[in-house]
Amino acid sequence: MEDKSILIVISGFSGAGKGTLVKRLISDYDNYALSVSMTTRAPRPGEVEGKDYFYVTKEAFEERIRDNGLIEYAQYVGNYYGTPRDYVEEQLAKGRDVILEIEIQGALKIREQYKDALLLFVMPPSAAELKNRLLKRATETEEAIRNRLRRAAEESEGIDEYEYIVINDDLDACVRELHSLIRAAHYAAKRNEGFISRIKSELETYR
Amino acid sequence: MEDKSILIVISGFSGAGKGTLVKRLISDYDNYALSVSMTTRAPRPGEVEGKDYFYVTKEAFEERIRDNGLIEYAQYVGNYYGTPRDYVEEQLAKGRDVILEIEIQGALKIREQYKDALLLFVMPPSAAELKNRLLKRATETEEAIRNRLRRAAEESEGIDEYEYIVINDDLDACVRELHSLIRAAHYAAKRNEGFISRIKSELETYR
Repeated sequence: MEDKSILIVISGFSGAGKGTLVKRLISDYDNYALSVSMTTRAPRPGEVEGKDYFYVTKEAFEERIRDNGLIEYAQYVGNYYGTPRDYVEEQLAKGRDVILEIEIQGALKIREQYKDALLLFVMPPSAAELKNRLLKRATETEEAIRNRLRRAAEESEGIDEYEYIVINDDLDACVRELHSLIRAAHYAAKRNEGFISRIKSELETYR
Repeated sequence: MEDKSILIVISGFSGAGKGTLVKRLISDYDNYALSVSMTTRAPRPGEVEGKDYFYVTKEAFEERIRDNGLIEYAQYVGNYYGTPRDYVEEQLAKGRDVILEIEIQGALKIREQYKDALLLFVMPPSAAELKNRLLKRATETEEAIRNRLRRAAEESEGIDEYEYIVINDDLDACVRELHSLIRAAHYAAKRNEGFISRIKSELETYR
């Protein structure tokens, strides 16, 4: 089999634990590369350049856009956020599966360009549990939590676009599940068209 | 998640080792039920009723057809072969994943009725290896081997209809791979529509 590397998009409601899951995938397995987003917003205290984001000026970001140097980008509260193309292409070429943590609009844009991208959606076991988790964080106002839940309701409309859904109930189990879904995705017929057509033409000689 | 049981169709070229793989899946894991086909052909020496096939008369088979008691059936060299519906439905209702070993035409008929059926295709690493394996069996004439290879060439046209392809190179590895692909299939968004719409409507209350 060809075993091409895969571009993996992980989405999920705010509060579903995507960030932690992605960190664990990277640290538990050695075949993944994490794509770091580029942004024009200022670093928050504790954030690290090249780890949390690549921080650039508006001008530099817009130059990237013009050079087709971003796989996808969006504006949010007056700032740009995007996925640099070079790192993704480089790591895929090295045979590593590249992970992007991104929301649904970005995910769909990526699938337009990378038709074999694997779209995974992380969910809490129920809407009530999502609310509980947001309340437990206790770092946000009631209004902010209401906004996140409203946003989750909007985002939930796109879940059917994803290939797999994963319930984040137990962290360790969920990390293993994600990894095995990604392994499985490598065997999808649609991701092995080259191998399949090679076998077909080899068999043709026996007709 | 709902974790509905799945109807699994395993196809593959003659000589790809499907039969052995299916036996190992059943013996290595306890969540599978194997569907046994019904046929009007006479048992061969060593074959066991209810294990290799259910052997019935032409009249009994045609009554099954009229009663919609078969998920799919076909005629081959003057005999009927088909999949009894009752066993499949019974085992799915009990929460077990049901395995059918069947060729492509039957697989496609099954997917028409069970849209969530999981279609897996088992392949040798190459066409040359397929030929080697058939030659090694040494139980067949050159002509019979040529026929099998010709049939493989025909069957290969349908591979793209399958969800996953699996290379049977190392038996133990292949059994584990099949099992993990089946586990992964349970997480496919398209097989969890009930769960997804429940979450969606729960979230609606937060809008």
